[in-house]
Amino acid sequence: MARELEFFFDFMSPPTYLAYTQMPGLIARTGATVRFRPMFTIGLLQLTGNRSPREVPNKARWMGADLQRWARRYGVALGGNSHIDTLKIIPPLRGAFVAAGRGETDAYLAAMFRGMWVEDVNIGEAATWARLIGGAGLDPDAYAAGVERAEVKEALRANTQEAADRGAFGAPSFFVGDELFWGQDRLAFVEEALMALPA
Amino acid sequence: MARELEFFFDFMSPPTYLAYTQMPGLIARTGATVRFRPMFTIGLLQLTGNRSPREVPNKARWMGADLQRWARRYGVALGGNSHIDTLKIIPPLRGAFVAAGRGETDAYLAAMFRGMWVEDVNIGEAATWARLIGGAGLDPDAYAAGVERAEVKEALRANTQEAADRGAFGAPSFFVGDELFWGQDRLAFVEEALMALPA
Repeated sequence: MARELEFFFDFMSPPTYLAYTQMPGLIARTGATVRFRPMFTIGLLQLTGNRSPREVPNKARWMGADLQRWARRYGVALGGNSHIDTLKIIPPLRGAFVAAGRGETDAYLAAMFRGMWVEDVNIGEAATWARLIGGAGLDPDAYAAGVERAEVKEALRANTQEAADRGAFGAPSFFVGDELFWGQDRLAFVEEALMALPA
Repeated sequence: MARELEFFFDFMSPPTYLAYTQMPGLIARTGATVRFRPMFTIGLLQLTGNRSPREVPNKARWMGADLQRWARRYGVALGGNSHIDTLKIIPPLRGAFVAAGRGETDAYLAAMFRGMWVEDVNIGEAATWARLIGGAGLDPDAYAAGVERAEVKEALRANTQEAADRGAFGAPSFFVGDELFWGQDRLAFVEEALMALPA
């Protein structure tokens, strides 16, 4: 078994963004291949009976401070996103399948995560989404058409269901083989599990 | 401000046990004073609108595996406790105040945590509790009388409410001054916060 990491992600989740920023270092150290797998986290919470930490006020406050401590440790700036409460995240998530089909995953994910957590724009708003895609040198029309395809819609649903079936309950979720690691704060364990595999 | 750590704990919580096992090392490295503060975690969850991770089956399964990874990292054996679903944890928690009043906190906590997570006995059952106390060289009768005192009952209620009021929502919870750290997996941040204070 080669060093492959499955990274179930959602652009909406700040800890997922922090984990995303750590992928280049992890790849450099382990030589692992990262397979980015979009999922709809709100759907995953519903499928598994879980709730967002934001529903518990004390937990939401602690989590804000905790994420800033991790961001400092990583040397990453982490702001908020002002649009998160009304964000329509499904089209941008579907766009990740379009990107995969076009061999543009790296550029597309970078544009979306950057829009969400650095630029603080509404990536679920069609014109903004198109602008981010164009700004990454990709073709906004191809993405707008792609996210309407039935197989793309189904792919997001299927990934979310698969995450639940394999034991996930939140974002980010990582699999090394069948072993689940939940949270950006578990990347050290992820790395150990990868290093235990043949290079 | 000296290096003081407040450790809000509950014998029932496996991650709290793991954190407890790490205190000698943390104290040796930081010179910190640890103030052990008993709280009733189920009450804290109710006060803050939180739920036990055990209520989400996927999360409970992941947490079992995750705690074993941490236990291996720490070099600590972590079993389960067969009595946890029916455990009456309030008297043993109240006993921690009796222990504090008698200058016996270290011996009492060691006996309770060991009973829970090494011996796998029912520490909430009166005869077992008395046996553990006696086995630690302490006086079971003094503890049996002490936990019935009104001020001891009130102290547990007050600690639980204080934890909620200061932002906690689960166990273990650590405070360095007013800064909250939740989880045994945040001890590295706790240690950094302690080291930032004058020795």
